[in-house]
Amino acid sequence: MLNFQDKGLIYVFTGNGKGKTTAAIGQAVRAIGQEWKVLMVQFIKEWISGEVPSLKKLGIEIYPMGEGFVGIMGDTKPREVHEKAARKALEFAQEKVNSGDYDLLILDEVNVAVSLGLLDVKSVLDFLKDKPEKLNVILTGRNAPKELIEAADLISEVKEIKHPFAEGKKAKRGIEF
Amino acid sequence: MLNFQDKGLIYVFTGNGKGKTTAAIGQAVRAIGQEWKVLMVQFIKEWISGEVPSLKKLGIEIYPMGEGFVGIMGDTKPREVHEKAARKALEFAQEKVNSGDYDLLILDEVNVAVSLGLLDVKSVLDFLKDKPEKLNVILTGRNAPKELIEAADLISEVKEIKHPFAEGKKAKRGIEF
Repeated sequence: MLNFQDKGLIYVFTGNGKGKTTAAIGQAVRAIGQEWKVLMVQFIKEWISGEVPSLKKLGIEIYPMGEGFVGIMGDTKPREVHEKAARKALEFAQEKVNSGDYDLLILDEVNVAVSLGLLDVKSVLDFLKDKPEKLNVILTGRNAPKELIEAADLISEVKEIKHPFAEGKKAKRGIEF
Repeated sequence: MLNFQDKGLIYVFTGNGKGKTTAAIGQAVRAIGQEWKVLMVQFIKEWISGEVPSLKKLGIEIYPMGEGFVGIMGDTKPREVHEKAARKALEFAQEKVNSGDYDLLILDEVNVAVSLGLLDVKSVLDFLKDKPEKLNVILTGRNAPKELIEAADLISEVKEIKHPFAEGKKAKRGIEF
């Protein structure tokens, strides 16, 4: 019979508020402090955020594998480019967790990739179903599809109550990226 | 005239869900990646969580200054002990930010300290009013008092939707602490 402590859980961090990816980063830092092996694969994101070198320094593996914003912010890439990147990111995560002895995997912005239709929800569900038993998985991003919500053991919804961007202000270096 | 980029903001991370302190930790890691100077003062907490050595390794200053759980989990300390610890933590934060050139201060669990009455809400409001202009402040913890909500530029409420503890399961090393 399985002990709860030995069985990895599935977490979803979703909602329109600030703090989903940063909460996952915080979890990664906490986990590495307990000598867990941690992998973070980023969908959508292609850029190197402020946290990437810091996380690498701590021994957290992090791979931005997206092609950037999809259909907004001046994106002119064919949709296929984004779809291919999303599929490749999930395959990469699968190979890594099957070959390594990971305790925590963060699929950053995967909820967005699925909700935009870049990735079939079934492929993510299959991934979760077949994951190594002890592996904990955090799925971040707004608009988490209901199938992923149903598959999760824990969901945190981050709601924005008041946000300076609502007043048309610009992104803040160090805080937003 | 002030540029938004040069003026520090006040953030509140509250709600009953998982991810408030971890989101603040993630912000700290992101900020240090942008060469910000970061200080984290922890109320309530007296123990060294998994993240503490990792954060120190990155150059983030972190000080657990609480006396542990208040009135629960076998706490037998006189209430004055907790009150004194909370006042001392706020004074310590004030001295640090007045003497150092910090960009980001995290007052972890301060919302709880205020809501339990260990700390007068006015002392926190005065602190925020007198803070160095460029300093960003993150206040974490559930039950954020309305005065702090009103003082904030941004509030993220983390709502628990589904949580394994609700089914009586135990805290998970690496994830919860």
